[in-house]
Amino acid sequence: MAIARPGRPHPVTGAWMPSQLAGSRQFFTFAPNRPFALDCGVTMHGVTMAYETWGRLDADGGNAVLLCHAWTGDSHVSGAAGVGHPAPGWWEDVVGPGLAIDTDRWFVVCVNVLGGCQGSTGPASPHPDDGRPYGSRFPVVTIRDMVRAQARLADHLGVARWHSVVGGSMGGMQVLEWAITFPDRVGSIVPIATCAQATAQQIAWGAIGRRAIRLDPKWRDGDYYDADDGDGPWEGLSIARMVAQVTFRSDNVFTEKFGRELADGATHHEGVGLWQRFEVERYLEYHGDKLVRRFDANSYLHIGKAMDLHDVGRGRSGVNAAMARIKAPTLVLGISSDILYPTYQQRQIVDLLAANGTRAEYVEINSPHGHDAFLINFDQVAPPVRTFLETVATH
Amino acid sequence: MAIARPGRPHPVTGAWMPSQLAGSRQFFTFAPNRPFALDCGVTMHGVTMAYETWGRLDADGGNAVLLCHAWTGDSHVSGAAGVGHPAPGWWEDVVGPGLAIDTDRWFVVCVNVLGGCQGSTGPASPHPDDGRPYGSRFPVVTIRDMVRAQARLADHLGVARWHSVVGGSMGGMQVLEWAITFPDRVGSIVPIATCAQATAQQIAWGAIGRRAIRLDPKWRDGDYYDADDGDGPWEGLSIARMVAQVTFRSDNVFTEKFGRELADGATHHEGVGLWQRFEVERYLEYHGDKLVRRFDANSYLHIGKAMDLHDVGRGRSGVNAAMARIKAPTLVLGISSDILYPTYQQRQIVDLLAANGTRAEYVEINSPHGHDAFLINFDQVAPPVRTFLETVATH
Repeated sequence: MAIARPGRPHPVTGAWMPSQLAGSRQFFTFAPNRPFALDCGVTMHGVTMAYETWGRLDADGGNAVLLCHAWTGDSHVSGAAGVGHPAPGWWEDVVGPGLAIDTDRWFVVCVNVLGGCQGSTGPASPHPDDGRPYGSRFPVVTIRDMVRAQARLADHLGVARWHSVVGGSMGGMQVLEWAITFPDRVGSIVPIATCAQATAQQIAWGAIGRRAIRLDPKWRDGDYYDADDGDGPWEGLSIARMVAQVTFRSDNVFTEKFGRELADGATHHEGVGLWQRFEVERYLEYHGDKLVRRFDANSYLHIGKAMDLHDVGRGRSGVNAAMARIKAPTLVLGISSDILYPTYQQRQIVDLLAANGTRAEYVEINSPHGHDAFLINFDQVAPPVRTFLETVATH
Repeated sequence: MAIARPGRPHPVTGAWMPSQLAGSRQFFTFAPNRPFALDCGVTMHGVTMAYETWGRLDADGGNAVLLCHAWTGDSHVSGAAGVGHPAPGWWEDVVGPGLAIDTDRWFVVCVNVLGGCQGSTGPASPHPDDGRPYGSRFPVVTIRDMVRAQARLADHLGVARWHSVVGGSMGGMQVLEWAITFPDRVGSIVPIATCAQATAQQIAWGAIGRRAIRLDPKWRDGDYYDADDGDGPWEGLSIARMVAQVTFRSDNVFTEKFGRELADGATHHEGVGLWQRFEVERYLEYHGDKLVRRFDANSYLHIGKAMDLHDVGRGRSGVNAAMARIKAPTLVLGISSDILYPTYQQRQIVDLLAANGTRAEYVEINSPHGHDAFLINFDQVAPPVRTFLETVATH
């Protein structure tokens, strides 16, 4: 019963490396006299933020919109895949000239998160002490750390106050932290398919993926970048991604798309082996393999941990007290079929804000696609976002 | 960032071995001139079924009830943990003298499934050719194979016709196959929290667990029983179990039980490392570790595959045609919070039976505990089962 494990010539990591072309990335490195203190107590030096911008900042700096990306996203919100960018923009149909987030009107910014792997400082980046990758030395970062690093970039860009901060999933966690940490720098917020604190079930799914990566002998306790055999923990990362991919979608769409079809041309008549795949398995492996080519296993671990640690109430006397700090008008989007961030979590955000007299609106995306619907159902995501940005501007 | 991986002195497998005490197990080995042909085309020799019985078979053989166990269950339905039995009975409060499945009245039988690891022939069993464990040589088995093997045991026990066949989850799959394959041998059925065919999402969860086991270097392509270092694939099996355990429970109970508590006495003030666990992670690892001590990784793979292959309609012109063969009165139980086998699947069973004029009743267990509620909420499971068994008997 031999197992076909395709011998894929992966590099050890899908992280963007400074030796590669930058594409549309820009970079901002914190000044040597501006070390960066993390929530975990570690102080980092020479932190770099990779970011992209669209449109132009008004003279009064009032038209800036910050987009915050999700777990495996990056700064490439809009634009084709190509040189420097392994994947096309994740909100291609939402952000652009004349689109809902109109780059003729708004100065749009998106920053690869701290701990990421597409240009911002992360585990695959050189440690300033010796120039070798951080690897296992990379410290635990939080959503708050990510946001405070973005605030430094905002200073650099001359953005004193965002007209709006917008993001889904982990992006939505950043959105909430922006509004709570920097209430004076945020004019409005759009948290999408997100939560005020990660639940036990969300932590469970994240933790299982992390353990799969840890189990991969090629992960090498996080120090795989210099591996002699040039082989990275792609199998563990792929399994972690498979876990996430199921939680990102829905039962009924899986049934409609894959049903019980066998993959690879197999039939039950010819005998089905233990490792014979159904179509849904082929699909999940495809997504796992795809991620491996553009992501870094250690970034996956660290960003996942940051999400588990997400709790707007930590050190702020609880969720209610933290949410009471938000004064910015808010549009919350939830997705009807989301099994990972069920809509009760978005309703909770709206309820907490409304209870404090903050203007908060809830729109539910009616989609069968599950959590990922905010990256799929642009027809339902774009209109309320467009209207909200305009309404806030005229108030 | 060192990772604490407890060096647990596990044996290579948690399978019951013939060198161990039998406990309340009995054994039936197919006669040498009765080879057993599997759906996959392989013919097995010397297949053994381990089983337990409670109560006494009536002279007319009319009071026999077959209970079918779930994925990681075994024949030990009732009775304490102890010599020969690593876990207490899984339906302790449902089966016994005076209980819902009254062993003073019914002759109750439960058989460890073919492919299992608690006494019936499975991957850890000796191959008749050389006496060494099957390991990677174990063939793919189906739910139908399991049921046909149980039918041979029924012959041996003198049970021409079961008064009822009862089981939850994978046990419910066997229940349906019994009624379809042997309509004359089944007086009534009670499928619980199960489905007529595995869905793509169910296959996805199963497949992810299998890939975690495969990734464990100690799995050794399935031939780990003779490993020099005596170390088995407990880490991969544990991760697979963690995946299952989340799907067996529910979001809200996880939130109530674990919330966002840190495990191992940690606090956020003292810094949280990448491998610092939340309580829910400790819980999942505990369940993973527990399973490893009483289960075999290869059995987990094979039984999971059998569930993925479950489709009552295969080779029978589809689900509707297959279900039309069922004439036995049926009680279907579903669980309101089941995310793995959602209630629409049990309603489908009832609808298909009713459409063919078969007496089918649906009772929903109103529980927050998810799929595992049939092993938890005995107060809701037992009464309808008791009534059903009695009603069927008097008809």
